[in-house]
Amino acid sequence: MLLLKDAAIVTMDKENPFIDNGFLVIADGKLIEVGSGSPSEKQEADAAEVISVKGKWLMPGLINTHGHIGMTLLRGHSDDLPLHRWLEEKMWPFEGKQDEEAVHAGRALALAEMVKSGTTTFLEMYHLYMDQCAEAVEEAGMRATLMRSMIGLCSKEEQEAKLGEAVRFAKQWHERADGRIRTMLAPHAPYTCPPAFIERIVEEAVQLQLPVHMHLAETKKEVADHLEQYGCHPLDHLDQLGVLDAVPWLFAHGVHLAEAQLERLARTEATISYNPKSNLKLGSGIAPVKEMLERGIRVSFGTDSVAANNTLDLFEELRIGNLLQKGSYQDATALSAGTTLELATINGAEALQFPELGKLKAGYQADFILLDGEQLHVQPAAHVLSHLVYAVKAADVTDVFVQGKALMRNRSLLTLDEEKIRYQANRQYKKVCSLM
Amino acid sequence: MLLLKDAAIVTMDKENPFIDNGFLVIADGKLIEVGSGSPSEKQEADAAEVISVKGKWLMPGLINTHGHIGMTLLRGHSDDLPLHRWLEEKMWPFEGKQDEEAVHAGRALALAEMVKSGTTTFLEMYHLYMDQCAEAVEEAGMRATLMRSMIGLCSKEEQEAKLGEAVRFAKQWHERADGRIRTMLAPHAPYTCPPAFIERIVEEAVQLQLPVHMHLAETKKEVADHLEQYGCHPLDHLDQLGVLDAVPWLFAHGVHLAEAQLERLARTEATISYNPKSNLKLGSGIAPVKEMLERGIRVSFGTDSVAANNTLDLFEELRIGNLLQKGSYQDATALSAGTTLELATINGAEALQFPELGKLKAGYQADFILLDGEQLHVQPAAHVLSHLVYAVKAADVTDVFVQGKALMRNRSLLTLDEEKIRYQANRQYKKVCSLM
Repeated sequence: MLLLKDAAIVTMDKENPFIDNGFLVIADGKLIEVGSGSPSEKQEADAAEVISVKGKWLMPGLINTHGHIGMTLLRGHSDDLPLHRWLEEKMWPFEGKQDEEAVHAGRALALAEMVKSGTTTFLEMYHLYMDQCAEAVEEAGMRATLMRSMIGLCSKEEQEAKLGEAVRFAKQWHERADGRIRTMLAPHAPYTCPPAFIERIVEEAVQLQLPVHMHLAETKKEVADHLEQYGCHPLDHLDQLGVLDAVPWLFAHGVHLAEAQLERLARTEATISYNPKSNLKLGSGIAPVKEMLERGIRVSFGTDSVAANNTLDLFEELRIGNLLQKGSYQDATALSAGTTLELATINGAEALQFPELGKLKAGYQADFILLDGEQLHVQPAAHVLSHLVYAVKAADVTDVFVQGKALMRNRSLLTLDEEKIRYQANRQYKKVCSLM
Repeated sequence: MLLLKDAAIVTMDKENPFIDNGFLVIADGKLIEVGSGSPSEKQEADAAEVISVKGKWLMPGLINTHGHIGMTLLRGHSDDLPLHRWLEEKMWPFEGKQDEEAVHAGRALALAEMVKSGTTTFLEMYHLYMDQCAEAVEEAGMRATLMRSMIGLCSKEEQEAKLGEAVRFAKQWHERADGRIRTMLAPHAPYTCPPAFIERIVEEAVQLQLPVHMHLAETKKEVADHLEQYGCHPLDHLDQLGVLDAVPWLFAHGVHLAEAQLERLARTEATISYNPKSNLKLGSGIAPVKEMLERGIRVSFGTDSVAANNTLDLFEELRIGNLLQKGSYQDATALSAGTTLELATINGAEALQFPELGKLKAGYQADFILLDGEQLHVQPAAHVLSHLVYAVKAADVTDVFVQGKALMRNRSLLTLDEEKIRYQANRQYKKVCSLM
């Protein structure tokens, strides 16, 4: 049994949202008690370890619902280019030369960066070396929803081979690593997957009882092209195919959704993964999150890959995501601090279908982070909730626990080798560049 | 003589923008040489101190061209409210109860936060205790442009008294503290200063040969109200008064400027201080910076006060400011990394009229910062310029020098007492709250 005491706790539990001074009791990876005041003498005596976290703020770990960590070596490789030149001249040539070692080096860098910035759970959608990714997650002690991404611009045989591989991976890894890994199926996007292939994938997902993840309505061009080719918006197309209510969808981006699409989404179990920084940086636009939330559509946060971000820092993502809604609607009430934190915790857990995650309450998973409440940029320290959204920095995260196990203590990684990761990331980056 | 060597240097000097491995020679607060490779043996022998900064990135200190650090205790005091309720129910009641000690505690907190996040020069526009502010800047070793803000919604006698005080302050402190302090005159805004008062202030500024700083076109409502009251846009109104070309203006915000105003601004010496986070958070909107730059209008960065931000972190400000232009214009080329850094350095120096500032080259001021290039979130480390805009964090700033003097070494403040500042900020905040 592990006991943390003397903490200011943001529980994200509506019944008891903020505990000024409280404690956590943890056993078998779960929260046994989230209490106010001091633990009992018996609780202290029974604990294998008692940690006082005075001056720190404790909250659920952040949840990143869209990304491609296999691309992490591409951080800063190219910026400030129009999308097609960025893809064709920079991203694809580099990705084409990445081997297993290079992808692994990028992923290890991503895992370490995520832990150091308070992310405990993430989604990985990529087409290469997914088994190795799952092994890395298991070893790092993180929590993740993993999927083999599929592009269907190929023959039926190739499509079926990709789907077979995706299904094999999904079955093999679902609920593995003490339940820390879950899986989904993932057609890449409506513009890269013909309708019949999307139908096939959803058919398999229904069989496996798994959600489906896909990019959707990221750019104005994507929607315009779909209208031209199929006569309808990509979301309406999914509806016409009859697949929209067949599974719980997790759509990345959802930038270009008009009222009709928002109304339809509100009647589904779908989640929109809001990726504000990527959408800004690539010039895609600003997702209408205020209108989504008003209609009861579930929204969570995602970073996308560092090639389009260029960090995996969810605190920065949620801050920009919040401010952007206020600014673009010219409405300071467009998105509150409390709702913003819900998107990054509770909604993330629901989107990735992890039960008992995203809140700190008895019976829930012991996935939580500690932040240094004594940094100058969070003084006066009276407004913890505000500061978590509008002022804290990733570097304020001091400790990270997943399933009751420490992944970082006092900024030192315990399951990942920072020095080796830094060395390998630079070495592999240079290697791939030398092959181009 | 001080010598720094083994540095990756971003000079912001067009003739020699990036030095992969170089050195700085500093004497009497100025840069004597910014060189490539290693310094000579003689240079090493002559130096009173030689510092190797291997693994670090060196760049000019950041310049913050709009703020009210007298309001720093208000961080997180209120968020997510419509502007009028935020002002009337939260900001003004608190400000009304702040005494000299409270304002000073907020300002000390701001100075420390700025140094810790790489800002070496800033602007302070506030109506209270400006002498004390100047003394704090002098003592902290920072560089600042200071001004006594004036609201003209009062009798002519009161207006003249405020102007007298502002002029006295401007004269007394201009070019003091070894030239580190400059001054301006500052009518608060067109909607708080009647035209005749603005004319009086500009008249005095012409006499003193000082620039004038003012909030302008921050909200849609401000512009609509001005149109109703005076029949024209606030900027056109200044033009009609004949004051637009009389002095170098520094306008904060400039969110709601149409083509006619941009065209006119392009024919002036004015600078727009772009405050993206404040403009987003208060629901004011997004300034058309891309169009300003296309027309050759000078743009710099400002944070505004923490009441509307809620940090003084210019690295975050410039990142959001950059991404916002790309996203709102749906154009990934709207604002490059290089131009973004120019806004935060060279343009800031010009806006605040500090000569020989904003670049690292011989003869310029020795105001510079060092960043840790070994953090995981800036790996692979090959893309320094990209990372400075899209990936570094304020906490990566390790060392800060102004006029050749260290204000921070290895994250430790040398001229400010962090512990005392934290204590006083919380104590004074509670005191003011108890008076309300």
